[in-house]
Amino acid sequence: MESIVEILSQYSDKFNKDLETYFPRCEGIQYRAFDAMRYSITNGGKRLRPFLLTKSSELFGVDYKSSLGASIALELIHSYSLVHDDLPCMDNDDFRRGKPTCHKQYDEATAVLAGDGLLTYAFEILSNSCIEDKKKIKLISLLSKLAGAREGMIAGQVLDLFTESNIYIDKKEEIIRQTQALKTGCLLKYPCICGCILGDGSKKEEETLTKYADNIGLAFQITDDILDVIGDEKIVGKTLKKDEKQNKLNFVSIYGVEKAQKQALRLIEEAIEVIDYFGTNSCEFKLLAKYILDRKY
Amino acid sequence: MESIVEILSQYSDKFNKDLETYFPRCEGIQYRAFDAMRYSITNGGKRLRPFLLTKSSELFGVDYKSSLGASIALELIHSYSLVHDDLPCMDNDDFRRGKPTCHKQYDEATAVLAGDGLLTYAFEILSNSCIEDKKKIKLISLLSKLAGAREGMIAGQVLDLFTESNIYIDKKEEIIRQTQALKTGCLLKYPCICGCILGDGSKKEEETLTKYADNIGLAFQITDDILDVIGDEKIVGKTLKKDEKQNKLNFVSIYGVEKAQKQALRLIEEAIEVIDYFGTNSCEFKLLAKYILDRKY
Repeated sequence: MESIVEILSQYSDKFNKDLETYFPRCEGIQYRAFDAMRYSITNGGKRLRPFLLTKSSELFGVDYKSSLGASIALELIHSYSLVHDDLPCMDNDDFRRGKPTCHKQYDEATAVLAGDGLLTYAFEILSNSCIEDKKKIKLISLLSKLAGAREGMIAGQVLDLFTESNIYIDKKEEIIRQTQALKTGCLLKYPCICGCILGDGSKKEEETLTKYADNIGLAFQITDDILDVIGDEKIVGKTLKKDEKQNKLNFVSIYGVEKAQKQALRLIEEAIEVIDYFGTNSCEFKLLAKYILDRKY
Repeated sequence: MESIVEILSQYSDKFNKDLETYFPRCEGIQYRAFDAMRYSITNGGKRLRPFLLTKSSELFGVDYKSSLGASIALELIHSYSLVHDDLPCMDNDDFRRGKPTCHKQYDEATAVLAGDGLLTYAFEILSNSCIEDKKKIKLISLLSKLAGAREGMIAGQVLDLFTESNIYIDKKEEIIRQTQALKTGCLLKYPCICGCILGDGSKKEEETLTKYADNIGLAFQITDDILDVIGDEKIVGKTLKKDEKQNKLNFVSIYGVEKAQKQALRLIEEAIEVIDYFGTNSCEFKLLAKYILDRKY
C-alpha cells in the first residue's frame, strides 16, 4: 500500500500541472503582479486543501476534473492569505517553504497586489468552472463567507494579530481555539463541505466531514505550534520560534510540548473514528489525519 | 428639472442607507477588520459606480432593488482598491475625502485585512443577491476579470506604480491611456455592462454603453489629473500635486492643463452623442457626463 506521503506527492504533481495552466507567462510590466502570483502559488505547498476537496468529492462520485475549479480557487485563497500574512506589517516573514516570501522576491506593493490578484482570480476561476450554476453559487457564497472578515479567515488573522497576550489564563484556551477555528479551520472545513455540495451529500455526511475537518484543523495548528518550538528550520522552511520571541499565545505556550502532543493525538484519533462512517472510502482520510500528526514540516 | 448634483446626492443617500445594512456593528476584537471596512466604505464616496449600475439596469427595466446586490458588490471592490492604494507601500496617502485613510485611522495590518475583507465580502454579497443564477455567475465572472491582475484594475495599479517616467515621449500617451483604461476604466465599464446582463440587452446596446463608459472613464481620469494640479485641497479632500512631486506620468504632465481640458471636453461630447442612442432614457447619463467634466472634487 502506498504511504500518504506518496499519495500526496502524486496528487500535488498532478494538481501543480493543472494549476500552471492557469498561470501562463505574459510579457510586459503590467503583469508584474500576475508574475508574483505565479511565484507565490508555485511555491511548493503541500496542497492539503485541494487534496481534501478532491477526496471529499470522490466520496460522492464526483471526480478530480469536475471539482478542479473549486480546488484551484481554494488553493489561490490559501496562497493569497500567506502572501499578505508574510508582509512586514503583519507577520514580517522573509522565508516561506525555504524561498524568499513574495515581498522579499518582489516588493511590498507587488505583494499586496499579488495577494489581491490571487483572491480575485479565485472567484474568476470558480465562476468559470464546469460546475452547475446552482452549486457554483453555493460554493462561491460559502468560500467568501469562510474566507471573510466576519465569520472567516480574516477574522482569525485579526485575532492572531491583535489578541493581547496578558489576558486571563482561563480565557486563553478559548481565544486560541477561536483564532485557530477561524484562521486555519475555515479553509480546511471548506473543502470537506465542497464534496457534499458537489455530490449532493446528506446533512449527516456533511456533519461527519465537518467534524473530521474541525479535528484535523485543530490538530494541524497544534502540530504547527509544536514544530515552531522543536522543529528543524531547514526542514520546516521558515523562521521558527517566532511566537516565543513575540510572546504570542499558542497551544504550546499554554500547555507545553508534551500536553499539546497528547491533545493533538486525541483529536486525530477522534477524527479517524468519525470518518470511519464512510467505511472503506475513508482510508485516505485516515492516513491524512495520521500524517498531520507526524509531519515534520 | 433637478441638477445632477441633486440626483446623485439623492441616489447616494438611498444607497448609503442600504449599504449600512450590510455592515452591522459587532462587538469583539475579531471584528477590527470588519470595523475598518465599515469606516472605509462609509467614507462619503460619490457612489458614481453604483449609480451607473442602477441607471444602466433601469434602461432595461431592471429596478434599483433587483440590481442592488451588484451595486453594493461593485462599490466594495472600488473601496478595497482605495484602501490598498492608500497604503504606505503604494501611494502612501494620509487623507481620503478629508478623513484619515484606513491605515492612519487603524493601522497598516488592519488596512490590508480590511481591503481583503471588502474584496471577499463583495463576492459574498453578489453570490447571495436576488439575481437569477445564470446572470449572477456572469456578473461574478466579469467583475473578477475586470478587477483582476491580468486584464483588470490590478494590472492598472501595477502600471501606475511601475511605469518608469523616462520612457520615450511617443510611448507616453499609449501607456497613460492603458493605465487609465485598466485602473479606473474597468470598474466604470463594469456597471454599464451589468445593466445589459441583468436586463438582457442586445450586443449593440452593450457596445453603446461600453463606449460611453470608456469615454467618461478617460475624461474622469483627465479631470482627476487636472484637479491634482489646479484643484483646491480642501474641496478635493486629499493631498494634491502628488504626481508632480513624484514625477509621475499623467495627462497634464504630457499635454498641459489647457490641452487636457480640451481633450476631456471632446471625450464628454462624444459620450453624450453615443448615449443619445437610448433617446429620452439617456438624460441622466448625459448629465452625469457633463458633471464629470465640471466636478470640483
